Amino acid sequence: MCRWLAYLGAPLRIEELLFRPQNSLIRQSLHAKLGATTTNGDGFGLGWYGERGFPGVYRDVMPPWHDANLRSLSEQIRSRLFLAHVRASTGTSTSRENCHPFRFENALFMHNGQIGGYARIRRDIENLIPRDAYGHRHGTTDSEAFFLLAIGNGLLEEPARALSRTVAQIRGVMDENAIAEPFRMTAAYADGASLFALRVASNDRPPSLFYAEGSEVAIRDAQVEMEPGRGSILVMSEPLDMHEGPWREVPPGHLLESRGGIARVTPLPLF
Amino acid sequence: MCRWLAYLGAPLRIEELLFRPQNSLIRQSLHAKLGATTTNGDGFGLGWYGERGFPGVYRDVMPPWHDANLRSLSEQIRSRLFLAHVRASTGTSTSRENCHPFRFENALFMHNGQIGGYARIRRDIENLIPRDAYGHRHGTTDSEAFFLLAIGNGLLEEPARALSRTVAQIRGVMDENAIAEPFRMTAAYADGASLFALRVASNDRPPSLFYAEGSEVAIRDAQVEMEPGRGSILVMSEPLDMHEGPWREVPPGHLLESRGGIARVTPLPLF
Amino acid sequence: MCRWLAYLGAPLRIEELLFRPQNSLIRQSLHAKLGATTTNGDGFGLGWYGERGFPGVYRDVMPPWHDANLRSLSEQIRSRLFLAHVRASTGTSTSRENCHPFRFENALFMHNGQIGGYARIRRDIENLIPRDAYGHRHGTTDSEAFFLLAIGNGLLEEPARALSRTVAQIRGVMDENAIAEPFRMTAAYADGASLFALRVASNDRPPSLFYAEGSEVAIRDAQVEMEPGRGSILVMSEPLDMHEGPWREVPPGHLLESRGGIARVTPLPLF
Amino acid sequence: MCRWLAYLGAPLRIEELLFRPQNSLIRQSLHAKLGATTTNGDGFGLGWYGERGFPGVYRDVMPPWHDANLRSLSEQIRSRLFLAHVRASTGTSTSRENCHPFRFENALFMHNGQIGGYARIRRDIENLIPRDAYGHRHGTTDSEAFFLLAIGNGLLEEPARALSRTVAQIRGVMDENAIAEPFRMTAAYADGASLFALRVASNDRPPSLFYAEGSEVAIRDAQVEMEPGRGSILVMSEPLDMHEGPWREVPPGHLLESRGGIARVTPLPLF
Repeated sequence: MCRWLAYLGAPLRIEELLFRPQNSLIRQSLHAKLGATTTNGDGFGLGWYGERGFPGVYRDVMPPWHDANLRSLSEQIRSRLFLAHVRASTGTSTSRENCHPFRFENALFMHNGQIGGYARIRRDIENLIPRDAYGHRHGTTDSEAFFLLAIGNGLLEEPARALSRTVAQIRGVMDENAIAEPFRMTAAYADGASLFALRVASNDRPPSLFYAEGSEVAIRDAQVEMEPGRGSILVMSEPLDMHEGPWREVPPGHLLESRGGIARVTPLPLF
Repeated sequence: MCRWLAYLGAPLRIEELLFRPQNSLIRQSLHAKLGATTTNGDGFGLGWYGERGFPGVYRDVMPPWHDANLRSLSEQIRSRLFLAHVRASTGTSTSRENCHPFRFENALFMHNGQIGGYARIRRDIENLIPRDAYGHRHGTTDSEAFFLLAIGNGLLEEPARALSRTVAQIRGVMDENAIAEPFRMTAAYADGASLFALRVASNDRPPSLFYAEGSEVAIRDAQVEMEPGRGSILVMSEPLDMHEGPWREVPPGHLLESRGGIARVTPLPLF
Repeated sequence: MCRWLAYLGAPLRIEELLFRPQNSLIRQSLHAKLGATTTNGDGFGLGWYGERGFPGVYRDVMPPWHDANLRSLSEQIRSRLFLAHVRASTGTSTSRENCHPFRFENALFMHNGQIGGYARIRRDIENLIPRDAYGHRHGTTDSEAFFLLAIGNGLLEEPARALSRTVAQIRGVMDENAIAEPFRMTAAYADGASLFALRVASNDRPPSLFYAEGSEVAIRDAQVEMEPGRGSILVMSEPLDMHEGPWREVPPGHLLESRGGIARVTPLPLF
Repeated sequence: MCRWLAYLGAPLRIEELLFRPQNSLIRQSLHAKLGATTTNGDGFGLGWYGERGFPGVYRDVMPPWHDANLRSLSEQIRSRLFLAHVRASTGTSTSRENCHPFRFENALFMHNGQIGGYARIRRDIENLIPRDAYGHRHGTTDSEAFFLLAIGNGLLEEPARALSRTVAQIRGVMDENAIAEPFRMTAAYADGASLFALRVASNDRPPSLFYAEGSEVAIRDAQVEMEPGRGSILVMSEPLDMHEGPWREVPPGHLLESRGGIARVTPLPLF
């Protein structure tokens, strides 16, 4: 299991969200409160949109907590849309290619969870990925397989539909193979303009997922405050501080979609 | 393209062959003389047989030339059978899982060369790997795919036959897909008792491959000398010094096989 | 703060102690029970004596818990004397040179703790290191400085006296500079034949240190059992299982010394 | 020996200079034409000034040629002042702390060359570094020692004078210790507004150093063109293409200084 955070809104320095809050993503890498594992030290990644049509990505296999490069990039880079991820491997190896977020053209994707019985059905899932997208299979995780399969399902054109369809397809493969272990996931997808986040499970224990909305984010005394209004949205595996604060849960089986600073949370249509 | 070295014979310290010769494998990593690329700095690996039924493996993504761990292990470990590899990536990423040698149960395998058009036919090749072996697909190289496919073809039971068959299968897939780029390779395979090495290409430019035989290896003034007699064999991408020395070329399309210290070089039966 | 383990006795495979016990060193790297920090993921190291006059060392900057190289080396290497260390940085960077154990000729040393006010008195301490030993200063930790200073104090000739003297010297420098933060440490030193371990603090909170003695170590159901008799000794930051077991505490201000399999624990003579 | 490049002028994407020219810095890392070593694969670094008062730094121990992070950062970041360095270690270890550029507050520094007999006089040099600056000694290179010593000599206030003085001081220590090996160096220093570069040696073989001036840099067909005019300056170890082009040599014993886009090359006053 892993922890992640995504932001879309008024440009801010990445360090604000990655390092300053009481329960910042970097602190979660050492001591996650709601994750299946408390330590998320098997690599990390940051993807952000700047001035170009495609995003930048920095990923490394070290734990994030003492990584001077991540600290420096976070201090320098301002972004209106970025994704960050700290990883706890459930078996696949600690390589940069297995770190999130994954990039495809102008899209970014990151994931937390598990595809039950993945070792057994991995090739079945990989075979559903269209040939073109398969050329972008650089690692071996179930996460990257989900992403490439979703691309094959039209993720770049119709994200909500493609995400739903991919969940359904994978659950279909699990059923065909009589997999007993659950399917549980959260994920974030960004295309440079919009942000999507998903929370779904085959049982009643989906990974945690929260969001917060406002006109702007402000960090005061390590607490996160969302200024009144709309336009900025924060989605993440667990709240960034221990206050009541602005945190709202994404319900299981739901999809959060944000374009133009308005977040909509709707049931995920399962195929 | 990469450079590699394999040894079977009287136990010796690994540093003898890895570091001491004039054109040692570690020097080849900086300045290979016969390889397609002169620098082989995209990771390295060492696999060796000690007291256990299965081999040890040390692989890392750093260049080998200044790696203190590799130096120390080579100083400490004596082995009668080991494989070492320095890597120049032809595209796949620099991760430990893409470094050679690859291990499967008590077997080790390493490779140099290319499967023409691999990006296009990768999934076709992967789909030929039996399900059990596919569970051991930890990286994304053509090299590991060759190994796992060979395992499916009986590598652990009938190595010569399985290697030949795997070459034929892959060339078959290339033909079906009208791949114009060549198939060129050398490889080494060890099962704990025997050592096999292969040199083959679809054109007249197979990667270089040499061997030397004797009762024992001695390094004197950075020159490699093979003591008269039999029992020890050294196979490697290029000679370890610039002397006439004991170096003999493995002819293209041939397989070298060594059991009990006797090397036999025979044409590779192509299926 | 860090966690460590040292062994001297009947040869055994390193994996037995590093991986198999309920609270093995590798598990401590994720969840130490008695350390100042629960996560020890800022590098690790293994030093062992084999057939040569000097030890082998494998150190890396990754967390140890998923390191396939460490797993493989531990499976292959049998040793009668080895030191292993998992690191939680207190500020100095995560580089191989800052990982323990440190080697000097045929000696190994590792350390856990802190020299109060080290940043302020670092150069004063470094200036006490003799010129020859200073040439072996490859990193920037207080730990390595302690080791090289102890070498200057005769560690290779009279270990107990040199360790005591080094503690006294450093506390002297701290006093001269009116350092208020405490001096707290445990350390292990091996010279290829003997093993020494130290536990000392300027306050009443020295880092934890335990040992166990017997004729042989046996791991049964993840519990550590010491066979009756003498000849094998295990010293480590915290017990390797949660049983009453064979664990005895090294008292604060004491030095454990083991030659020929007999452990003596004596007060550290402070100069 | 190493290779480096510095730029001050009209903002441009870092990839333009790092990757696109025929003899780009990244190509030099594999095949330097004028360096003492052809391979510069022992780590690399990038320091750049963005919107903040202090620069960002990305350094890693991998070779730069296949580093996807460096590629991505270079694509995303536009900067009017940046320094980049590829490293060939002359003995000190491959750690991030030994990679250039080094940062101190808002200053960056990088270096190529050697201080003769450094191993013998290292501590003498380190002892000349003021206590405050010594707290920023994170690695063990002669390069970082030069930088911190220069800071003690007023680098942040009077760069030209401090650089000269530091060269003189180090040569003084070499003389006192009767060091026969030469002192040879180039270096770049930036403070966020100005760029300084130095070329000096105790013998007639200083490392190579070139520069080019113009109103803007344009890369066409892998050739570097400087548009007529002033305002942009490029300084680097060796020309970025094989054309006559805009390349001018910095004479030995000279200092290049650029403020406000005007480059002045003057003899280095030796103390």
